[in-house]
Amino acid sequence: MTMAHKNRIGNLFSLTSFGESHGPAIGGVVDGMPAGVEIDLELVQQELSRRRPGQGGTSSSRNETDEVEILSGIMNGVTLGTPIGFIIRNRDHRPEDYYHLKDVYRPSHADFTYQAKYGIRDHRGGGRASARETAARVVAGALAKQVLSQLGIAITAQPVTDVPEIPAGDSRGGIVTCVIKGVEPGLGEPVFGKLSAQLAEAMISIPAAKGFEIGLGFDFVNHLGSEVLDKFILKGDKVTTETNFSGGIQGGISNGNDITFNVVFKPVATLMQPVEGIDSDGKPVTIEPRGRHDTCVLPRAIPVVEAMAAIVVLDNVLINRAARL
Amino acid sequence: MTMAHKNRIGNLFSLTSFGESHGPAIGGVVDGMPAGVEIDLELVQQELSRRRPGQGGTSSSRNETDEVEILSGIMNGVTLGTPIGFIIRNRDHRPEDYYHLKDVYRPSHADFTYQAKYGIRDHRGGGRASARETAARVVAGALAKQVLSQLGIAITAQPVTDVPEIPAGDSRGGIVTCVIKGVEPGLGEPVFGKLSAQLAEAMISIPAAKGFEIGLGFDFVNHLGSEVLDKFILKGDKVTTETNFSGGIQGGISNGNDITFNVVFKPVATLMQPVEGIDSDGKPVTIEPRGRHDTCVLPRAIPVVEAMAAIVVLDNVLINRAARL
Amino acid sequence: MTMAHKNRIGNLFSLTSFGESHGPAIGGVVDGMPAGVEIDLELVQQELSRRRPGQGGTSSSRNETDEVEILSGIMNGVTLGTPIGFIIRNRDHRPEDYYHLKDVYRPSHADFTYQAKYGIRDHRGGGRASARETAARVVAGALAKQVLSQLGIAITAQPVTDVPEIPAGDSRGGIVTCVIKGVEPGLGEPVFGKLSAQLAEAMISIPAAKGFEIGLGFDFVNHLGSEVLDKFILKGDKVTTETNFSGGIQGGISNGNDITFNVVFKPVATLMQPVEGIDSDGKPVTIEPRGRHDTCVLPRAIPVVEAMAAIVVLDNVLINRAARL
Amino acid sequence: MTMAHKNRIGNLFSLTSFGESHGPAIGGVVDGMPAGVEIDLELVQQELSRRRPGQGGTSSSRNETDEVEILSGIMNGVTLGTPIGFIIRNRDHRPEDYYHLKDVYRPSHADFTYQAKYGIRDHRGGGRASARETAARVVAGALAKQVLSQLGIAITAQPVTDVPEIPAGDSRGGIVTCVIKGVEPGLGEPVFGKLSAQLAEAMISIPAAKGFEIGLGFDFVNHLGSEVLDKFILKGDKVTTETNFSGGIQGGISNGNDITFNVVFKPVATLMQPVEGIDSDGKPVTIEPRGRHDTCVLPRAIPVVEAMAAIVVLDNVLINRAARL
Repeated sequence: MTMAHKNRIGNLFSLTSFGESHGPAIGGVVDGMPAGVEIDLELVQQELSRRRPGQGGTSSSRNETDEVEILSGIMNGVTLGTPIGFIIRNRDHRPEDYYHLKDVYRPSHADFTYQAKYGIRDHRGGGRASARETAARVVAGALAKQVLSQLGIAITAQPVTDVPEIPAGDSRGGIVTCVIKGVEPGLGEPVFGKLSAQLAEAMISIPAAKGFEIGLGFDFVNHLGSEVLDKFILKGDKVTTETNFSGGIQGGISNGNDITFNVVFKPVATLMQPVEGIDSDGKPVTIEPRGRHDTCVLPRAIPVVEAMAAIVVLDNVLINRAARL
Repeated sequence: MTMAHKNRIGNLFSLTSFGESHGPAIGGVVDGMPAGVEIDLELVQQELSRRRPGQGGTSSSRNETDEVEILSGIMNGVTLGTPIGFIIRNRDHRPEDYYHLKDVYRPSHADFTYQAKYGIRDHRGGGRASARETAARVVAGALAKQVLSQLGIAITAQPVTDVPEIPAGDSRGGIVTCVIKGVEPGLGEPVFGKLSAQLAEAMISIPAAKGFEIGLGFDFVNHLGSEVLDKFILKGDKVTTETNFSGGIQGGISNGNDITFNVVFKPVATLMQPVEGIDSDGKPVTIEPRGRHDTCVLPRAIPVVEAMAAIVVLDNVLINRAARL
Repeated sequence: MTMAHKNRIGNLFSLTSFGESHGPAIGGVVDGMPAGVEIDLELVQQELSRRRPGQGGTSSSRNETDEVEILSGIMNGVTLGTPIGFIIRNRDHRPEDYYHLKDVYRPSHADFTYQAKYGIRDHRGGGRASARETAARVVAGALAKQVLSQLGIAITAQPVTDVPEIPAGDSRGGIVTCVIKGVEPGLGEPVFGKLSAQLAEAMISIPAAKGFEIGLGFDFVNHLGSEVLDKFILKGDKVTTETNFSGGIQGGISNGNDITFNVVFKPVATLMQPVEGIDSDGKPVTIEPRGRHDTCVLPRAIPVVEAMAAIVVLDNVLINRAARL
Repeated sequence: MTMAHKNRIGNLFSLTSFGESHGPAIGGVVDGMPAGVEIDLELVQQELSRRRPGQGGTSSSRNETDEVEILSGIMNGVTLGTPIGFIIRNRDHRPEDYYHLKDVYRPSHADFTYQAKYGIRDHRGGGRASARETAARVVAGALAKQVLSQLGIAITAQPVTDVPEIPAGDSRGGIVTCVIKGVEPGLGEPVFGKLSAQLAEAMISIPAAKGFEIGLGFDFVNHLGSEVLDKFILKGDKVTTETNFSGGIQGGISNGNDITFNVVFKPVATLMQPVEGIDSDGKPVTIEPRGRHDTCVLPRAIPVVEAMAAIVVLDNVLINRAARL
């Protein structure tokens, strides 16, 4: 990891993002996109729309018509190999929903930690801590997905189970499961660059993500070693495994099987009921519900999980070209 | 993340490691150790001994008298600020235990993936995939721990529960839980440098690690948002929380509470019973048990988990010095 | 160096830039700006204006009213510690000036090398190879300069000598000399992170830069060792040197003296006279002069040299905070 | 650049080095060596011997029988793709030659700057500032050279002119010129990753290096633009240039021509005559000559310049594999 990881993820293929929830815009720079790739910008826009609020009943009613504007790196629909800068203007934000929070630390939010770190923060909408920044991730992931799709790699995420009913004014979390198909054996770097470790970092960097497991994950504790060996077999002339408890990664390197992992998201911390916060003097403050907020992040987290997976996989596809003479 | 992460972890404070299980030595370079720190090399040696086989009944009988030799960076017991190079000679290894595996891919090992990636591999003892490389991590972590201890930070890992009995010839995994005490609020970088994400990457990079969760982790799905808010309170003049479902990290930044996380390890894949492998032509091969192997990694994983946590925390302590003017 | 350096420079304080000469916009993300710094955006705009064409008689008449738009990271004129995204719209560009160059490689330009590398290029105005991208550097440098100014550090560049008269239709290069005052001793990292090496990289990354020397530089060959020792003396209670042949850096680390270095720029390669190029089939092509071009880059290079120095120095000020316990 | 650059250079192919002049050993870790390369360790040892003192009349008589011991990453003479750790024991050092310098800052050395940075230093032989660390660079460069040689790339450095006579007790500097042949067009990354910039950084990181120029370098100021255009021509079916004022790099990317650059080294600062230093209280101290020191670094700098060039070129060969889909 480098300093770059503050607001940058990836090595050969990377995203550097910027933007606060209620600032003029969010955006980013995608660097290392290989040259000569045909990009369908309409598909990128569609990925963004998957992330919008208003999905099902659990997303807020904030109208984010996320329109991405590409500023460089693509000419006549083909990538130049140069960095792709993009912005998404922040519209339909209501800073007045946050005035009352200027000196208040909300429980289980990043208000206090940002203030402790920087001595200053943008309190409107959570500033840089807001999940709004994930829109930039989705753009970068959408670009990566198009390259991967040309390499026969597909990424699909979905909820593990239906989210139970959520009482009015409260929220729930949930687990997203993700499958990456078509990855050839050999991706990932031994020891510290394990593909599993890179995926873990990418997923836990998503707002509200609190756990990651690959293959059988935490369920491994319920089994003997002999019960969970992935026996090698030949399918045609391709080496694969009969089972896939490993989740497609062994010794940190892909083995050609589907890569399968889960990510757990905690319940949304902003509730439509009064909660107790604290002000900057340490005095308790009752926070009345205001604004528009999701009751469950899952529908909106799904395209973000896919995007992060796409960024990591494309990065490693490129890195792996240097593995042999 | 950078290319460095292949065999390097950390940014301002980093470890670059090397070494195969049956090569002449393993070792590493610790870079970014602040100058002027008193180091007790005996304590470093003791951390290494915690990692040795022969702990309790689940570790192998391989006699690894891991003696670390420091080659630079420390003079008269004080750090110079220059890189600390170190090696640990490989002794008491029996390459003959592995001759029969030269062209065999063992199930749930990295034999196949390394061969697929590099077209060549050191088959003896797993080569670079062997958990032997974790000795270098423990040395770096031991150095980091001594600095952290001078800053009032302590790291302790232990098994979550006792490991059930393991039938002869088989193996089990387990969960290690870790607590980091004394971390001030403000560590970690928003968005991609979240302290939780860095810890996740560090832990999942440990051989056999298959899952990571922080705070309530996967148990979050069983709760409503209102049930798991960490309410802020004042303790004396210090802001803290009444509960700690967040695990000490909010918005990716430490909030001053104990940082608590779990790591699950899969069962050891090398069993003392015959298993079916495949050779490089794709033909099934029965692998007879040979050599000396752990039946559960947990006792040996504990110092490694602590070491990785120490590396990440010290790195972020240093990085955080740049947060404000 | 990391992959980041493709379009990113710096470690703790960094700029990631994007943008082609004739694309919609150029811009960048400044990451690692310490929180709590008061920024005067008018000063940033002024730095940009120093870089504009139309300076004296050697700059082109292209009207680049470079207006920078800050998109994040600064609230009420104070930095948040979050990344600062910014864009500069490309206006007043005349792509028609370049239509005739679509399949032509101009001598001493990057047309051929970009085509060789990427198999595709934006031929308009030189694409990403155009010096237009330096506007993003100047913005980042302007932000860095304001922080450095609060730390008592000042950077000034100027031409070494007057540029001789330039015959109509031709061009000249020149040498820029730069002085950095107020840097405390201790900046820079031994071995590969030498402050001199970082400055060299930053300067040679500027379009048309072809040489870098620090202190006495290439003139060292004309002197005996005894003639160029920088004798230490005490000034008040501060250690300094009587002379400064070292250019303020010894062993790669600043010693408190003025840091002095020179950068040589080659003559502008785009001439207002016919030159011989080659087309993509290898056939010679006579290129008639079109468009508006500088005859000497020096006036416009000066703010860029200062900007690069500011980025490197601020980065190292922050890194140096980690040198000791 | 990343934090790694403190003691690490390179991205996909990198060297992380360690070691003080009078510590137990120096050494390093070469990471990113492609798998499957046949390595002749005897050739590596020979490169080291080129660096030894005792070359001609200008090198010290210190007997450094630099014997490199490879600890990992190579099996049966073939690279595994895993990191190559190596050490070189420090022998024949005479720390007693330096006792009198324990609290003395020698002029034009790094004694003062290291003390200012770290508050502590290894005064024996210059510690980490000593040119001894360049032995590790030569090992890494020797490994890189063997890969490059298999790719048809050759690197040769030599003095520009003979060094004039050096009066007894004094020293001289000199200029090393280097040619890299066989590099295909396309190496290097636009903007901040220019091949010229990476070479500049690598060269200026060498102890005593004080200037770098590529192609016509500083001589560009003596020419009109029309006089120094590198006209494109076809040689067979290969595009090349009639002249090579650019030094083989245009727009920061190689164009297939020889890459030519110069590096100037200042005179050795340790003289065999009394010089005036200062002690840690600021009082002048006369330093009597002791020990064994070069009078000119040039013969020993030559293999180091080649080594640095090899590291940078191999790194970029690997990076360039990611340029296109």
